[in-house]
Amino acid sequence: MPERLDELRYHGGNLSAARRSFPNAPEPWIDLSTGINPVPYPLGIIAPSAWTKLPEPCALAELEAAARAAGGAKPSTEIVAAPGTQSLIQWLPRVFPARRVGILGFTYGEHEECWRAAGAQVSTVEALADLIAFDVGVVVNPNNPDGRTFPPDDLAEIAKTLAQRGGLLIVDEAFMDALGRRSSLVPRLPEAGALVLRSFGKIYGLSGLRLGFAVASPQVGGMLRRAIGPWAVSGPAIEIGRRALTDASWLEETVARLTDEAARLDRLLQSAGFEIVGGTPLFRLAQHKRARAFFERLGRAGILSRPFQAKPDFARPVAPISAWLYQRWH
Amino acid sequence: MPERLDELRYHGGNLSAARRSFPNAPEPWIDLSTGINPVPYPLGIIAPSAWTKLPEPCALAELEAAARAAGGAKPSTEIVAAPGTQSLIQWLPRVFPARRVGILGFTYGEHEECWRAAGAQVSTVEALADLIAFDVGVVVNPNNPDGRTFPPDDLAEIAKTLAQRGGLLIVDEAFMDALGRRSSLVPRLPEAGALVLRSFGKIYGLSGLRLGFAVASPQVGGMLRRAIGPWAVSGPAIEIGRRALTDASWLEETVARLTDEAARLDRLLQSAGFEIVGGTPLFRLAQHKRARAFFERLGRAGILSRPFQAKPDFARPVAPISAWLYQRWH
Repeated sequence: MPERLDELRYHGGNLSAARRSFPNAPEPWIDLSTGINPVPYPLGIIAPSAWTKLPEPCALAELEAAARAAGGAKPSTEIVAAPGTQSLIQWLPRVFPARRVGILGFTYGEHEECWRAAGAQVSTVEALADLIAFDVGVVVNPNNPDGRTFPPDDLAEIAKTLAQRGGLLIVDEAFMDALGRRSSLVPRLPEAGALVLRSFGKIYGLSGLRLGFAVASPQVGGMLRRAIGPWAVSGPAIEIGRRALTDASWLEETVARLTDEAARLDRLLQSAGFEIVGGTPLFRLAQHKRARAFFERLGRAGILSRPFQAKPDFARPVAPISAWLYQRWH
Repeated sequence: MPERLDELRYHGGNLSAARRSFPNAPEPWIDLSTGINPVPYPLGIIAPSAWTKLPEPCALAELEAAARAAGGAKPSTEIVAAPGTQSLIQWLPRVFPARRVGILGFTYGEHEECWRAAGAQVSTVEALADLIAFDVGVVVNPNNPDGRTFPPDDLAEIAKTLAQRGGLLIVDEAFMDALGRRSSLVPRLPEAGALVLRSFGKIYGLSGLRLGFAVASPQVGGMLRRAIGPWAVSGPAIEIGRRALTDASWLEETVARLTDEAARLDRLLQSAGFEIVGGTPLFRLAQHKRARAFFERLGRAGILSRPFQAKPDFARPVAPISAWLYQRWH
C-alpha cells in the first residue's frame, strides 16, 4: 500500500505523489488518473499582447460569445468566463449563501468541500428529485466518476421548483462536451433557478490554461461576474479559448476518437476481468474485486490510474492514446 | 470631449475604448495609460505540460518559494499565489468580513469598489495613522497614482495596533518591485495584523499572464489559500513566474532602465509645461492646468494617457520606451 495513496485519491494528475509512491516506476509516467483529453487542442501562435497587456473587456466578450455559440445558449443567457471551473466552485457558496445544500452523489468532491467550508449543511442524496428539499442542489451531469446522465427536462423541472423558493440548481457539466448539446441544460437556459458550469480544459486537453464558464440567468450570472471581478481570465486563455470554441470540426473529430478509444479501453479492461460500471468518452469507471492490486501493479509500471476510497473496488483510467496503454500494460 | 472618457478613466489599458474615442488616431496606439513595464520578461520556452496538465502542488510551491526569496520573506511567512492581485482584492472582503474599512486615498479604486460591494462602510482617510480607527485599513505603497511611499516601520506599527483588535492592515505593494526590498513590508512579516499584496505582471510586463501574491501570517494566508482553492494559477504563469522571480539580474537592469526613462519622461513633461507631482519608475503623475486638452491631443495622435476625474489637472503617462514618445509627441 503506497504511503501517499491519499494524495492520489483526492484528485487525479498528481504525478509527483505517484513518483514518491512508486519510486522505481519507469519514466515517463502515463497518466490515466484524470478526465483530461490527452490530445490537446493545438496552441497555435499566441499574440505577444495576450501576455503583456491586461485582457480587454472586448476580448473577453468575444470569448464568451464563442462559448455561447458552442454551447447553444440563447442571447438572453449570461455567460461568465473564469480561470477554471474550480474558481467558480470556490465562489458559489459566497455569492449564493445557502444553509442546506443537497448534492447528488457519489460525485466529484470539490462541491461538498467548498459548501462545507462556507458553513453550509451538506447532504448527499441518491435521487435527483430529492434535491428539491434544499436551498441549493448540485448535480454533476454526466456524473463523475460513473458517467450517469440526467435528462435536461428533469433538471429544468427541479430548477423551476427550487426557483419558487429562491433556490438554485447547480449543474456541473464539466464532461458534457463529449456528449453533445442535446444532453446539456445550456440551450434550455435562462432559468431563474439554474446555473450550469462548463469546463474548457478537459475536452480541449488544456487544463493548465485555467478556463471555465458559468452559464445562467442575467441576474445569477451578473452576481458571479461582479464577484469574480475584472481580468479574471488570462490573455492566452482568452485567445486560445476563443479559437478552440469556434472550431467545431476539431471537437467533432475529437469526440469520435475518444469514443472509439473508450470502447477499446473497455475491451482491454474486460479482458483483465474488470466490469465496466460507466463513464464518458473522457473516462471509464471499472470495477474489480482486486482493483487496488491492479492500481498498484499499474503504478509500479508507471501508469497512474485513480483509486476510489468510497468504493474500493473501483479504478478509473481515462481513455488514453491507446497505443501507449497496450505497450506498457502487457 | 470624447464620449467614452469614463471608460478610459476607470482603468488604464482600454485601447478599444480609446479607438472608439479617437477613431482617426494613427495605429498602432502607444499605451501610456497603465503602470505596466513595456519591455516584458522574455517568455522563453514553455513546457507543453504547463498547458495540458492541471498544475501540480509542488510546482505551485516552487513558484511561491521563488516569490519568497525574491521578496525577502521569512520562512515563517505564508505566500499565496493567485491569478492576479485583482483576484485577491475580490476575495479579501469575503475572507475577512469587516464593517468599517479605511482606505488611504486618493488611490487605486478597486479596493474601495470591492469592499463596498461586500457591504462594508468605506472611508477614505488622508493620514496613515487614521487607519487605526477601522476594522481593516488599506494602503497602496507606493501609492497609485502619486507614488507616495510609507515607511515599513510605520506600517508595521499600524498593523500591530490593528491586530490588537483583530483588525488587518492590507498593504498593496503592486509597484514595489521598482523600489526595492528596503521599502517593502514583506521582510518584516509575519505580523498577525498585516497582509501584503504583490503584483507580478506590472514590473515583469506580463499582466496578461494573471499572477499575483498575498504575503501574510500563516493564519491569514491560510484563510486566503483555502478560499481561492486549488489550481488557481495557470501552468504557464507558474512556469514563467518562477523563472522570472529567480532572475535577479533582469530585475536590476529593468529597474535601472525604467528609472532612467522616468527621468527622461519627466524632462519631456516639464518642457511641455507640466509639473511632476510624483510617481514610481513605472508611472509618472504630472499636473497641468490644461491636462485634459493634452490628454485629447495625445489621444488624437494615438497616444493613450490616463485622465483623472477626481483631480482633473492630472495626467498619468507611464515611463515608455522613450524613443516612441519623442517620435510621436512632437
